[in-house]
Amino acid sequence: MNIYKILQKKRDNFELTQEEISFFVQATTDGSISREQIAALLMAICINGMSENETFALTQAMLDSGRQLDFHYIGKPVVDKHSTGGVGDKISLNLLPILISFDLAVPMISGRGLGHTGGTIDKLESIIGYKVNLSHSEIKQQMETIGGMIIAQSEDIAPADRIIYSIRDVTATVESDALITASILSKKLAEGIDALVLDLKIGNGAFYQTFEQAKNLVRLMEEVCKKFGVRFQAIPTNMNNPLGRYVGNWLEVVEVQNCLRGDFPEDLKAITFELASELLVMSRIFENKNKAYSGIENVLASGRAYDNFLRWIASQGGNISISEKEYANTPIYIISSDREGIIKGFYTKEIGYAAIELGAGRKVANDQIDYAAGIKLLKKNGDRCERDEPIAVLFARDKSKFESAEKIYKNAIIWENL
Amino acid sequence: MNIYKILQKKRDNFELTQEEISFFVQATTDGSISREQIAALLMAICINGMSENETFALTQAMLDSGRQLDFHYIGKPVVDKHSTGGVGDKISLNLLPILISFDLAVPMISGRGLGHTGGTIDKLESIIGYKVNLSHSEIKQQMETIGGMIIAQSEDIAPADRIIYSIRDVTATVESDALITASILSKKLAEGIDALVLDLKIGNGAFYQTFEQAKNLVRLMEEVCKKFGVRFQAIPTNMNNPLGRYVGNWLEVVEVQNCLRGDFPEDLKAITFELASELLVMSRIFENKNKAYSGIENVLASGRAYDNFLRWIASQGGNISISEKEYANTPIYIISSDREGIIKGFYTKEIGYAAIELGAGRKVANDQIDYAAGIKLLKKNGDRCERDEPIAVLFARDKSKFESAEKIYKNAIIWENL
Repeated sequence: MNIYKILQKKRDNFELTQEEISFFVQATTDGSISREQIAALLMAICINGMSENETFALTQAMLDSGRQLDFHYIGKPVVDKHSTGGVGDKISLNLLPILISFDLAVPMISGRGLGHTGGTIDKLESIIGYKVNLSHSEIKQQMETIGGMIIAQSEDIAPADRIIYSIRDVTATVESDALITASILSKKLAEGIDALVLDLKIGNGAFYQTFEQAKNLVRLMEEVCKKFGVRFQAIPTNMNNPLGRYVGNWLEVVEVQNCLRGDFPEDLKAITFELASELLVMSRIFENKNKAYSGIENVLASGRAYDNFLRWIASQGGNISISEKEYANTPIYIISSDREGIIKGFYTKEIGYAAIELGAGRKVANDQIDYAAGIKLLKKNGDRCERDEPIAVLFARDKSKFESAEKIYKNAIIWENL
Repeated sequence: MNIYKILQKKRDNFELTQEEISFFVQATTDGSISREQIAALLMAICINGMSENETFALTQAMLDSGRQLDFHYIGKPVVDKHSTGGVGDKISLNLLPILISFDLAVPMISGRGLGHTGGTIDKLESIIGYKVNLSHSEIKQQMETIGGMIIAQSEDIAPADRIIYSIRDVTATVESDALITASILSKKLAEGIDALVLDLKIGNGAFYQTFEQAKNLVRLMEEVCKKFGVRFQAIPTNMNNPLGRYVGNWLEVVEVQNCLRGDFPEDLKAITFELASELLVMSRIFENKNKAYSGIENVLASGRAYDNFLRWIASQGGNISISEKEYANTPIYIISSDREGIIKGFYTKEIGYAAIELGAGRKVANDQIDYAAGIKLLKKNGDRCERDEPIAVLFARDKSKFESAEKIYKNAIIWENL
């Protein structure tokens, strides 16, 4: 097998065989081909695309490049969710405690913030003591006793993906449905799942502005999951607004607790229930979504979901009460309205950038995060504001950021005249 | 300026601006973009192509990345030839002494062997003492006193081309007309030429099998030369046979001397006369090709061309008589025909590989060359052979190679029954 011939073939828009793709991924992992050769092939894939068979072979080879978990011995359906990324997206933190309340196993491996979107791992690291890296035996114990975990991607899960991603990131080869599919699914399949829902965020705060743009990706993911025998459902969700009322790492952990104790903002509730009920029906816990919805209402009302949240966090080392004290004295700044009017909506990405400006995310890869930093939105779509009325609260340890973040925030509002 | 946006643009098949291309080449030369990024852009160019304007801008930027020579102060037209590479191609060594006999300045910068084709620099290095690297002052003196030189590409001529070529070579991005045009012309334009002929080899021993395949390359080179104000002519020449009777570095130097002293094989003569007369007419030394042909016959018959060969070689340090002694005792091996028949032709590339097998070229980049190694073809197209009649002589210091080279050679013959 010869990387030069593989490069020629994909350059000239021929289909690669399973053997050729497997050779490429192995040679990428063991360093026997150069990063220039990897970059050139990724660009050729990005331009000429990949068939379903090629995408399946790529996913398989990337999966096989690392360790694969298997929790079936526990005797529960194993499920997960992937989100394409939004602003104020704390759905994973809501979903896990609900799902494990129905005896689903949820071995989530999550990522950090990317661009204007927050990352689940960053949110969990705001909880003092929470361990995002677990050893093999800790993972086993966590899944056996709690039934769920959220950990960061470890070195030994799909190592080919890490190398390929680091090259895609700098060579403008991120936007390839085949490469996105293989990257997401190789990591999710390494969790040993039976069913996966895709939270496909659509709107001005998401990577996709319309469902049409994501159609080919969804089709590829469906086909690849089918070949692996994994049930898959993509669920388009609205990302024309920040989700819920809080954006920022610790602030979102606080909001999740509110949700699980019954104070569930409508938009967050709709998406959480939709994704959870889909997985519950796919796993045959309920025979239809209506019944699943009632079931979810029950585990929330009984306090079982919130208890499971606390058990999960504590089991991974997190201490909520120490964290509350730690963040209690975060400086705040109130943004008041310059005008009267009705808030019609937001340029949602800009709300993400305002939070990053406050310290809630990274501008460059090694930036330190201020876990206390973020925004509480006091007014959302359809809300009427008077002049000088408070519309948002900013949180940041570095007060010098308030002014610039206020500007970004105000420019992100789409007003409607009274 | 931002390499990521440039990558996105070419990936999505938009035309790059002169500024973007110039940024890419500068950043390639100064190392401020990574080799992965260069590789990805080269693959995108290879697949999506480049317009005439883009190719012109790329050539200009690669030219500007290094030093540019200028010999116009000498007061002669400055000309050169580029060959797309063949087997037994010693045309440059014939051409230079003929052209300088008419007071053309010929500042050739040449390359080494590539694949199955020999390289002019390798051939000249077979002459003991010949210096392929000249200092700035040596170049100046050589051009002023002799009017011609053949040197290897130095570090300071089109350094961007060297970096880009080293990446193209391993990423299957060699076959791009835009990249080929910019690579050839940036180096030729650095010689400060007024006119250029392209010896476009067509046939089973060449990179192009038909003229059709090379049409787009010729059009791009024409347009780019026009924008630089350089006269350009592509001349398709037959490469369905090894040129002349000798293949191998020193053997070809010997054959060139035979040619210049009057013993000119028909195929070599036709191409040499065609290219030389074209350059003589382009430089207005003769008003038409017929008159140029007679002129060339004269400088050959008078011995002026051969004298200029000896002056040129001596001036660059080469010693023909010591070389003759050095190679006089090279072991030989005679290949005899297994059959009777008429030689219809050759799989010409295979003749190149037979010579490489003997040591005349490199199988991998750092291989040592045996300058004495090569082949004398005793029978060429249309020649009749009896069984057991000698058809070729092999030369090599390593006698163990004769048997394998003989096999390759015999398999390269296309026979016609009597």
